[in-house]
Amino acid sequence: MNRFFVDPTAIHENSVDIPDETASQIRKVLRLKEGTRVQFLDNHGWLYESVIHYTDPKNITAEIIKKRSAEGEPACAVSLYIGLTQREKFEWILQKCTEAGVSKIIPMITERSLLRKTTDITGKKERWEKILKEASEQCGRGSIPKLSDPLSFHEAVKAGSLADKALFCWEDEKQKTLREILEPLHSTTSNISLMVGPEGGFSTEEAALAQEAGWSTVTLGKRIYRMETAAIASVILTLYELER
Amino acid sequence: MNRFFVDPTAIHENSVDIPDETASQIRKVLRLKEGTRVQFLDNHGWLYESVIHYTDPKNITAEIIKKRSAEGEPACAVSLYIGLTQREKFEWILQKCTEAGVSKIIPMITERSLLRKTTDITGKKERWEKILKEASEQCGRGSIPKLSDPLSFHEAVKAGSLADKALFCWEDEKQKTLREILEPLHSTTSNISLMVGPEGGFSTEEAALAQEAGWSTVTLGKRIYRMETAAIASVILTLYELER
Repeated sequence: MNRFFVDPTAIHENSVDIPDETASQIRKVLRLKEGTRVQFLDNHGWLYESVIHYTDPKNITAEIIKKRSAEGEPACAVSLYIGLTQREKFEWILQKCTEAGVSKIIPMITERSLLRKTTDITGKKERWEKILKEASEQCGRGSIPKLSDPLSFHEAVKAGSLADKALFCWEDEKQKTLREILEPLHSTTSNISLMVGPEGGFSTEEAALAQEAGWSTVTLGKRIYRMETAAIASVILTLYELER
Repeated sequence: MNRFFVDPTAIHENSVDIPDETASQIRKVLRLKEGTRVQFLDNHGWLYESVIHYTDPKNITAEIIKKRSAEGEPACAVSLYIGLTQREKFEWILQKCTEAGVSKIIPMITERSLLRKTTDITGKKERWEKILKEASEQCGRGSIPKLSDPLSFHEAVKAGSLADKALFCWEDEKQKTLREILEPLHSTTSNISLMVGPEGGFSTEEAALAQEAGWSTVTLGKRIYRMETAAIASVILTLYELER
Protein backbone atom coordinates (compact mmCIF):
# COMPACT_ATOMS: atom_id res chain seq x y z
CA MET A 1 0.00 0.00 0.00
CA ASN A 2 1.41 3.40 -0.95
CA ARG A 3 1.23 6.16 1.63
CA PHE A 4 1.74 9.90 1.15
CA PHE A 5 2.00 12.73 3.63
CA VAL A 6 0.14 15.86 2.52
CA ASP A 7 -0.49 19.17 4.18
CA PRO A 8 -3.64 19.03 6.36
CA THR A 9 -5.12 21.88 4.29
CA ALA A 10 -5.08 19.57 1.26
CA ILE A 11 -7.62 17.30 2.92
CA HIS A 12 -11.33 17.98 2.38
CA GLU A 13 -14.38 16.03 3.48
CA ASN A 14 -14.41 13.56 0.59
CA SER A 15 -11.31 14.32 -1.39
CA VAL A 16 -7.60 15.14 -1.23
CA ASP A 17 -5.89 17.86 -3.28
CA ILE A 18 -2.86 15.92 -4.43
CA PRO A 19 0.24 18.13 -4.49
CA ASP A 20 2.04 18.26 -7.86
CA GLU A 21 5.09 16.39 -6.62
CA THR A 22 3.00 13.53 -5.20
CA ALA A 23 0.82 13.43 -8.33
CA SER A 24 3.89 13.10 -10.49
CA GLN A 25 5.21 10.33 -8.25
CA ILE A 26 1.88 8.46 -8.52
CA ARG A 27 1.71 8.89 -12.28
CA LYS A 28 5.31 8.62 -13.45
CA VAL A 29 7.25 6.71 -10.80
CA LEU A 30 4.73 4.34 -9.26
CA ARG A 31 2.44 4.29 -12.33
CA LEU A 32 -0.60 3.57 -10.21
CA LYS A 33 -3.71 2.74 -12.20
CA GLU A 34 -7.23 4.23 -12.01
CA GLY A 35 -8.98 2.90 -8.91
CA THR A 36 -5.81 2.03 -6.94
CA ARG A 37 -6.16 2.35 -3.17
CA VAL A 38 -3.64 4.57 -1.45
CA GLN A 39 -3.38 6.22 1.96
CA PHE A 40 -2.90 9.90 2.70
CA LEU A 41 -1.57 11.09 6.04
CA ASP A 42 -1.95 14.57 7.51
CA ASN A 43 1.11 14.39 9.80
CA HIS A 44 -1.24 14.91 12.74
CA GLY A 45 -2.04 11.26 13.32
CA TRP A 46 -4.92 10.83 10.83
CA LEU A 47 -4.91 8.47 7.89
CA TYR A 48 -7.26 8.72 4.90
CA GLU A 49 -7.94 5.53 2.96
CA SER A 50 -8.45 6.79 -0.58
CA VAL A 51 -8.89 5.75 -4.20
CA ILE A 52 -7.21 7.54 -7.04
CA HIS A 53 -9.05 8.60 -10.20
CA TYR A 54 -7.72 9.97 -13.44
CA THR A 55 -9.88 12.81 -14.76
CA ASP A 56 -7.56 12.80 -17.77
CA PRO A 57 -4.13 11.17 -18.27
CA LYS A 58 -2.42 14.11 -16.57
CA ASN A 59 -4.89 14.89 -13.84
CA ILE A 60 -5.39 12.82 -10.71
CA THR A 61 -7.89 13.22 -7.93
CA ALA A 62 -8.22 11.21 -4.75
CA GLU A 63 -11.55 10.19 -3.23
CA ILE A 64 -11.53 9.55 0.54
CA ILE A 65 -13.16 6.26 1.50
CA LYS A 66 -12.45 6.26 5.21
CA LYS A 67 -10.72 8.35 7.86
CA ARG A 68 -8.99 6.57 10.74
CA SER A 69 -6.09 6.95 13.18
CA ALA A 70 -2.69 6.06 11.76
CA GLU A 71 -1.45 2.96 13.57
CA GLY A 72 2.30 3.36 13.37
CA GLU A 73 2.79 6.09 15.96
CA PRO A 74 4.69 5.11 19.10
CA ALA A 75 3.08 5.26 22.53
CA CYS A 76 5.87 7.48 23.81
CA ALA A 77 7.83 10.30 22.14
CA VAL A 78 11.51 9.38 21.86
CA SER A 79 13.99 12.18 21.14
CA LEU A 80 17.36 10.95 19.93
CA TYR A 81 20.38 13.19 20.61
CA ILE A 82 23.05 11.84 18.30
CA GLY A 83 26.62 12.84 17.45
CA LEU A 84 26.93 14.34 13.98
CA THR A 85 28.83 12.10 11.62
CA GLN A 86 29.56 11.52 7.95
CA ARG A 87 26.64 11.98 5.59
CA GLU A 88 25.95 8.41 4.56
CA LYS A 89 25.91 7.09 8.11
CA PHE A 90 23.84 9.98 9.39
CA GLU A 91 21.24 9.49 6.65
CA TRP A 92 21.09 5.81 7.48
CA ILE A 93 20.40 6.72 11.11
CA LEU A 94 17.60 9.08 10.02
CA GLN A 95 15.93 6.37 7.94
CA LYS A 96 16.27 3.47 10.35
CA CYS A 97 15.38 5.38 13.50
CA THR A 98 12.22 6.63 11.76
CA GLU A 99 11.22 3.02 11.15
CA ALA A 100 12.08 2.23 14.76
CA GLY A 101 9.67 4.96 15.89
CA VAL A 102 11.75 7.99 16.88
CA SER A 103 9.82 11.28 17.24
CA LYS A 104 12.65 13.79 17.08
CA ILE A 105 16.29 13.68 16.03
CA ILE A 106 18.71 16.24 17.39
CA PRO A 107 22.20 16.20 15.85
CA MET A 108 24.85 17.38 18.25
CA ILE A 109 28.53 18.19 18.27
CA THR A 110 30.49 16.48 20.99
CA GLU A 111 34.16 16.43 21.94
CA ARG A 112 34.91 13.53 19.57
CA SER A 113 32.37 14.17 16.79
CA LEU A 114 33.72 13.71 13.28
CA LEU A 115 31.89 16.83 12.13
CA ARG A 116 32.91 19.86 14.15
CA LYS A 117 30.88 22.72 12.78
CA THR A 118 27.17 23.14 12.28
CA THR A 119 27.99 24.91 9.01
CA ASP A 120 29.18 21.53 7.72
CA ILE A 121 25.57 20.53 7.33
CA THR A 122 24.24 23.71 5.75
CA GLY A 123 21.97 22.86 2.87
CA LYS A 124 21.44 19.29 3.98
CA LYS A 125 18.32 19.88 6.04
CA GLU A 126 15.94 19.70 3.08
CA ARG A 127 17.44 16.43 1.92
CA TRP A 128 17.30 15.00 5.42
CA GLU A 129 13.69 16.00 5.91
CA LYS A 130 12.84 14.21 2.67
CA ILE A 131 14.49 11.04 4.03
CA LEU A 132 12.41 11.30 7.21
CA LYS A 133 9.20 11.82 5.20
CA GLU A 134 9.83 8.92 2.84
CA ALA A 135 10.79 6.56 5.65
CA SER A 136 7.64 7.56 7.55
CA GLU A 137 5.49 6.85 4.50
CA GLN A 138 7.18 3.53 3.93
CA CYS A 139 6.83 2.21 7.45
CA GLY A 140 3.33 3.46 8.22
CA ARG A 141 4.01 6.27 10.70
CA GLY A 142 1.24 8.76 11.44
CA SER A 143 3.65 11.66 11.67
CA ILE A 144 7.09 12.54 10.42
CA PRO A 145 9.90 12.76 12.99
CA LYS A 146 11.16 16.29 13.53
CA LEU A 147 14.74 17.20 12.75
CA SER A 148 16.30 19.84 14.97
CA ASP A 149 19.14 22.16 14.08
CA PRO A 150 22.43 20.87 15.49
CA LEU A 151 23.18 21.66 19.10
CA SER A 152 26.40 21.78 21.03
CA PHE A 153 26.82 19.00 23.58
CA HIS A 154 26.04 21.45 26.40
CA GLU A 155 22.85 22.65 24.75
CA ALA A 156 21.83 19.05 24.04
CA VAL A 157 22.39 17.94 27.63
CA LYS A 158 20.26 20.80 28.89
CA ALA A 159 17.43 20.39 26.38
CA GLY A 160 17.19 16.60 26.71
CA SER A 161 17.19 16.63 30.50
CA LEU A 162 13.70 18.16 30.47
CA ALA A 163 12.11 14.87 29.33
CA ASP A 164 10.32 12.49 31.73
CA LYS A 165 13.45 10.36 31.54
CA ALA A 166 16.83 11.08 29.97
CA LEU A 167 19.08 8.13 29.10
CA PHE A 168 22.76 8.50 28.29
CA CYS A 169 23.89 5.39 26.35
CA TRP A 170 27.45 4.86 27.46
CA GLU A 171 29.88 2.08 26.78
CA ASP A 172 31.55 2.58 30.18
CA GLU A 173 28.30 1.93 32.03
CA LYS A 174 28.44 -1.79 32.73
CA GLN A 175 25.62 -2.25 35.23
CA LYS A 176 22.47 -0.23 34.68
CA THR A 177 20.36 -1.70 31.87
CA LEU A 178 17.59 -0.12 29.83
CA ARG A 179 15.18 -2.70 31.24
CA GLU A 180 15.97 -1.75 34.83
CA ILE A 181 15.23 1.90 34.11
CA LEU A 182 12.31 1.54 31.73
CA GLU A 183 10.31 -1.35 33.18
CA PRO A 184 8.95 0.66 36.12
CA LEU A 185 8.02 3.56 33.81
CA HIS A 186 5.99 2.16 31.01
CA SER A 187 2.47 3.35 31.58
CA THR A 188 3.27 6.81 32.89
CA THR A 189 5.93 8.14 30.57
CA SER A 190 5.13 10.33 27.60
CA ASN A 191 8.60 11.36 26.50
CA ILE A 192 12.14 10.02 26.71
CA SER A 193 15.48 11.47 25.67
CA LEU A 194 18.19 9.14 24.39
CA MET A 195 21.76 10.28 23.87
CA VAL A 196 24.19 8.33 21.68
CA GLY A 197 27.76 9.44 21.14
CA PRO A 198 29.94 9.65 18.03
CA GLU A 199 32.35 6.99 16.73
CA GLY A 200 34.92 7.71 19.41
CA GLY A 201 32.37 7.61 22.23
CA PHE A 202 31.77 10.20 24.92
CA SER A 203 34.57 11.53 27.09
CA THR A 204 34.47 10.93 30.86
CA GLU A 205 33.89 14.67 31.33
CA GLU A 206 30.87 14.58 29.03
CA ALA A 207 29.40 11.64 30.93
CA ALA A 208 29.90 13.49 34.22
CA LEU A 209 28.24 16.64 32.86
CA ALA A 210 25.25 14.66 31.61
CA GLN A 211 24.87 12.89 34.95
CA GLU A 212 24.98 16.20 36.81
CA ALA A 213 22.20 17.46 34.56
CA GLY A 214 20.02 14.48 35.45
CA TRP A 215 20.75 11.97 32.68
CA SER A 216 20.95 8.29 33.71
CA THR A 217 23.87 6.41 32.19
CA VAL A 218 22.77 3.11 30.69
CA THR A 219 24.28 0.11 28.90
CA LEU A 220 22.79 -1.30 25.70
CA GLY A 221 24.27 -4.73 26.45
CA LYS A 222 27.58 -6.53 26.53
CA ARG A 223 28.50 -6.15 22.86
CA ILE A 224 30.03 -2.87 21.72
CA TYR A 225 27.84 -1.29 19.07
CA ARG A 226 28.99 1.05 16.34
CA MET A 227 27.36 4.45 16.76
CA GLU A 228 24.70 3.84 14.11
CA THR A 229 23.84 0.45 15.59
CA ALA A 230 23.63 1.99 19.06
CA ALA A 231 21.24 4.62 17.70
CA ILE A 232 18.79 2.15 16.20
CA ALA A 233 19.14 -0.36 19.06
CA SER A 234 18.43 2.29 21.69
CA VAL A 235 15.24 3.43 19.93
CA ILE A 236 14.03 -0.13 19.20
CA LEU A 237 14.60 -1.31 22.76
CA THR A 238 13.16 1.81 24.40
CA LEU A 239 9.91 1.52 22.47
CA TYR A 240 9.83 -2.24 22.96
CA GLU A 241 9.80 -1.61 26.69
CA LEU A 242 7.38 1.32 26.62
CA GLU A 243 4.89 -0.14 24.12
CA ARG A 244 4.20 -3.19 26.29
CA MET B 1 41.26 -1.88 22.39
CA ASN B 2 42.16 -3.80 19.22
CA ARG B 3 40.99 -7.40 18.98
CA PHE B 4 42.10 -10.07 16.53
CA PHE B 5 40.81 -13.56 15.85
CA VAL B 6 43.57 -16.10 15.28
CA ASP B 7 43.56 -19.83 14.74
CA PRO B 8 43.62 -21.69 18.11
CA THR B 9 46.85 -23.43 17.01
CA ALA B 10 48.56 -20.01 16.97
CA ILE B 11 48.06 -19.69 20.72
CA HIS B 12 50.77 -21.03 23.03
CA GLU B 13 51.10 -20.85 26.80
CA ASN B 14 52.70 -17.41 26.96
CA SER B 15 52.68 -16.15 23.41
CA VAL B 16 50.69 -15.86 20.21
CA ASP B 17 52.06 -16.59 16.72
CA ILE B 18 50.72 -13.55 14.91
CA PRO B 19 49.62 -14.46 11.37
CA ASP B 20 51.24 -12.38 8.61
CA GLU B 21 48.04 -10.59 7.67
CA THR B 22 47.34 -9.54 11.27
CA ALA B 23 50.99 -8.53 11.78
CA SER B 24 50.84 -6.31 8.76
CA GLN B 25 47.58 -4.77 10.00
CA ILE B 26 49.16 -4.06 13.40
CA ARG B 27 52.31 -2.61 11.87
CA LYS B 28 51.12 -0.77 8.78
CA VAL B 29 47.44 0.04 9.26
CA LEU B 30 47.01 0.51 12.99
CA ARG B 31 50.69 1.42 13.60
CA LEU B 32 50.54 0.09 17.14
CA LYS B 33 53.61 0.86 19.23
CA GLU B 34 55.87 -1.45 21.27
CA GLY B 35 54.06 -2.41 24.46
CA THR B 36 50.51 -1.75 23.22
CA ARG B 37 47.86 -3.98 24.77
CA VAL B 38 45.70 -5.95 22.36
CA GLN B 39 43.36 -8.92 22.65
CA PHE B 40 43.53 -12.17 20.70
CA LEU B 41 40.50 -14.44 20.36
CA ASP B 42 40.54 -18.13 19.46
CA ASN B 43 36.97 -18.24 18.06
CA HIS B 44 36.16 -20.80 20.75
CA GLY B 45 35.16 -18.32 23.44
CA TRP B 46 38.61 -17.55 24.91
CA LEU B 47 40.23 -14.16 24.98
CA TYR B 48 43.96 -13.54 25.52
CA GLU B 49 44.99 -10.16 26.90
CA SER B 50 48.37 -9.57 25.28
CA VAL B 51 51.14 -7.04 24.78
CA ILE B 52 52.92 -6.62 21.48
CA HIS B 53 56.68 -6.45 21.16
CA TYR B 54 58.84 -5.58 18.20
CA THR B 55 61.89 -7.87 17.95
CA ASP B 56 62.90 -5.68 14.99
CA PRO B 57 60.88 -3.14 12.97
CA LYS B 58 59.41 -5.91 10.81
CA ASN B 59 58.90 -8.62 13.39
CA ILE B 60 56.17 -8.61 16.00
CA THR B 61 55.54 -11.04 18.82
CA ALA B 62 52.70 -11.07 21.31
CA GLU B 63 53.10 -11.94 24.96
CA ILE B 64 50.00 -13.28 26.71
CA ILE B 65 49.24 -11.51 30.01
CA LYS B 66 45.97 -13.16 30.90
CA LYS B 67 43.52 -15.70 29.53
CA ARG B 68 39.80 -15.20 30.17
CA SER B 69 36.37 -15.88 28.67
CA ALA B 70 35.30 -13.48 25.95
CA GLU B 71 32.33 -11.47 27.23
CA GLY B 72 30.46 -10.63 24.05
CA GLU B 73 28.94 -14.02 23.30
CA PRO B 74 25.15 -14.25 23.55
CA ALA B 75 23.46 -16.55 26.04
CA CYS B 76 21.49 -18.22 23.26
CA ALA B 77 22.47 -19.15 19.68
CA VAL B 78 20.33 -17.22 17.19
CA SER B 79 20.25 -18.46 13.59
CA LEU B 80 18.93 -15.91 11.12
CA TYR B 81 17.32 -17.22 7.93
CA ILE B 82 17.22 -14.22 5.64
CA GLY B 83 16.12 -13.62 2.05
CA LEU B 84 19.06 -13.02 -0.29
CA THR B 85 19.18 -9.47 -1.55
CA GLN B 86 21.45 -6.96 -3.24
CA ARG B 87 25.05 -7.00 -2.14
CA GLU B 88 25.26 -3.74 -0.23
CA LYS B 89 22.16 -4.44 1.85
CA PHE B 90 23.17 -8.02 2.52
CA GLU B 91 26.61 -6.99 3.71
CA TRP B 92 25.05 -4.42 5.99
CA ILE B 93 22.87 -7.18 7.47
CA LEU B 94 25.96 -9.35 8.04
CA GLN B 95 27.76 -6.57 9.88
CA LYS B 96 24.89 -5.28 12.00
CA CYS B 97 23.50 -8.69 12.96
CA THR B 98 26.99 -9.72 14.10
CA GLU B 99 27.03 -6.72 16.45
CA ALA B 100 23.52 -7.65 17.58
CA GLY B 101 24.77 -11.14 18.51
CA VAL B 102 23.66 -13.53 15.77
CA SER B 103 25.40 -16.94 15.76
CA LYS B 104 24.62 -18.13 12.24
CA ILE B 105 23.33 -16.49 9.08
CA ILE B 106 21.60 -18.60 6.45
CA PRO B 107 20.81 -16.80 3.18
CA MET B 108 17.76 -18.24 1.45
CA ILE B 109 15.88 -17.88 -1.79
CA THR B 110 12.17 -17.27 -1.38
CA GLU B 111 9.36 -16.67 -3.83
CA ARG B 112 9.95 -12.91 -3.87
CA SER B 113 13.74 -12.77 -3.31
CA LEU B 114 15.55 -10.26 -5.48
CA LEU B 115 18.35 -12.76 -6.10
CA ARG B 116 17.02 -15.98 -7.60
CA LYS B 117 20.05 -18.22 -8.01
CA THR B 118 22.65 -19.35 -5.53
CA THR B 119 25.22 -18.94 -8.32
CA ASP B 120 24.60 -15.19 -8.03
CA ILE B 121 26.71 -15.19 -4.91
CA THR B 122 29.59 -17.36 -6.09
CA GLY B 123 32.85 -15.83 -5.03
CA LYS B 124 31.29 -13.61 -2.40
CA LYS B 125 31.64 -16.00 0.53
CA GLU B 126 35.24 -15.07 1.32
CA ARG B 127 34.37 -11.36 1.33
CA TRP B 128 31.34 -11.99 3.52
CA GLU B 129 33.29 -14.07 6.01
CA LYS B 130 35.78 -11.22 6.30
CA ILE B 131 32.93 -8.84 7.14
CA LEU B 132 31.71 -11.23 9.85
CA LYS B 133 35.22 -11.55 11.30
CA GLU B 134 35.90 -7.80 11.35
CA ALA B 135 32.52 -7.01 12.87
CA SER B 136 33.12 -9.67 15.56
CA GLU B 137 36.51 -8.17 16.40
CA GLN B 138 35.08 -4.68 16.54
CA CYS B 139 32.16 -5.46 18.84
CA GLY B 140 33.90 -7.87 21.21
CA ARG B 141 32.37 -11.20 20.24
CA GLY B 142 34.05 -14.39 21.42
CA SER B 143 33.31 -16.21 18.20
CA ILE B 144 32.58 -15.33 14.59
CA PRO B 145 29.06 -16.02 13.31
CA LYS B 146 28.91 -18.83 10.77
CA LEU B 147 27.72 -18.17 7.24
CA SER B 148 25.84 -21.01 5.58
CA ASP B 149 25.58 -21.67 1.85
CA PRO B 150 22.25 -20.38 0.52
CA LEU B 151 19.25 -22.64 0.94
CA SER B 152 15.94 -22.79 -0.87
CA PHE B 153 12.96 -21.67 1.19
CA HIS B 154 11.91 -25.30 1.66
CA GLU B 155 15.34 -26.35 2.89
CA ALA B 156 15.47 -23.34 5.21
CA VAL B 157 12.05 -24.07 6.71
CA LYS B 158 13.09 -27.65 7.41
CA ALA B 159 16.54 -26.84 8.83
CA GLY B 160 15.35 -23.97 11.04
CA SER B 161 12.43 -25.88 12.51
CA LEU B 162 14.87 -28.11 14.42
CA ALA B 163 15.75 -25.28 16.86
CA ASP B 164 14.23 -25.04 20.36
CA LYS B 165 12.00 -22.32 18.95
CA ALA B 166 11.49 -21.17 15.35
CA LEU B 167 10.07 -17.68 14.77
CA PHE B 168 8.71 -16.57 11.41
CA CYS B 169 8.70 -12.74 11.35
CA TRP B 170 5.66 -11.86 9.30
CA GLU B 171 4.05 -8.55 8.53
CA ASP B 172 0.59 -10.20 8.31
CA GLU B 173 0.82 -11.51 11.87
CA LYS B 174 -0.82 -8.76 13.91
CA GLN B 175 -1.29 -10.43 17.28
CA LYS B 176 1.49 -12.69 18.50
CA THR B 177 4.45 -10.69 19.78
CA LEU B 178 8.05 -11.72 20.34
CA ARG B 179 7.61 -11.01 24.04
CA GLU B 180 4.65 -13.36 24.35
CA ILE B 181 6.64 -16.19 22.81
CA LEU B 182 10.05 -15.53 24.32
CA GLU B 183 9.27 -14.45 27.88
CA PRO B 184 8.34 -17.96 29.08
CA LEU B 185 11.45 -19.44 27.45
CA HIS B 186 14.38 -17.48 28.65
CA SER B 187 16.29 -19.74 30.97
CA THR B 188 15.76 -23.00 29.10
CA THR B 189 16.42 -22.14 25.48
CA SER B 190 19.78 -22.67 23.87
CA ASN B 191 18.94 -21.98 20.23
CA ILE B 192 16.40 -19.99 18.26
CA SER B 193 15.71 -19.72 14.55
CA LEU B 194 14.51 -16.42 13.11
CA MET B 195 13.20 -16.09 9.58
CA VAL B 196 12.98 -12.72 7.84
CA GLY B 197 11.66 -12.36 4.30
CA PRO B 198 12.89 -10.38 1.32
CA GLU B 199 11.80 -6.87 0.27
CA GLY B 200 8.44 -8.07 -1.03
CA GLY B 201 7.68 -10.11 2.08
CA PHE B 202 6.66 -13.75 2.29
CA SER B 203 3.75 -15.14 0.29
CA THR B 204 0.73 -16.57 2.14
CA GLU B 205 1.74 -20.04 0.89
CA GLU B 206 5.21 -19.64 2.39
CA ALA B 207 3.76 -18.60 5.74
CA ALA B 208 1.45 -21.63 5.69
CA LEU B 209 4.32 -23.99 4.87
CA ALA B 210 6.43 -22.58 7.69
CA GLN B 211 3.58 -22.90 10.18
CA GLU B 212 2.98 -26.52 9.17
CA ALA B 213 6.67 -27.20 9.80
CA GLY B 214 6.38 -25.81 13.32
CA TRP B 215 7.43 -22.17 12.95
CA SER B 216 5.49 -19.60 15.02
CA THR B 217 4.47 -16.48 13.11
CA VAL B 218 5.34 -13.35 15.03
CA THR B 219 5.03 -9.57 14.68
CA LEU B 220 7.97 -7.24 15.29
CA GLY B 221 5.59 -4.39 16.16
CA LYS B 222 3.16 -2.04 14.53
CA ARG B 223 5.57 -0.26 12.22
CA ILE B 224 6.52 -1.95 8.94
CA TYR B 225 10.25 -2.51 8.82
CA ARG B 226 12.36 -2.75 5.69
CA MET B 227 13.92 -6.20 5.41
CA GLU B 228 17.31 -5.12 6.75
CA THR B 229 15.70 -3.31 9.69
CA ALA B 230 13.56 -6.37 10.43
CA ALA B 231 16.70 -8.52 10.42
CA ILE B 232 18.55 -6.43 12.98
CA ALA B 233 15.45 -5.70 15.08
CA SER B 234 14.57 -9.40 15.31
CA VAL B 235 18.06 -10.33 16.53
CA ILE B 236 18.31 -7.38 18.96
CA LEU B 237 14.90 -8.04 20.50
CA THR B 238 15.32 -11.82 20.69
CA LEU B 239 18.59 -11.53 22.59
CA TYR B 240 17.20 -8.72 24.74
CA GLU B 241 14.50 -11.12 25.90
CA LEU B 242 16.76 -14.15 26.27
CA GLU B 243 19.71 -12.40 27.93
CA ARG B 244 17.60 -11.17 30.86
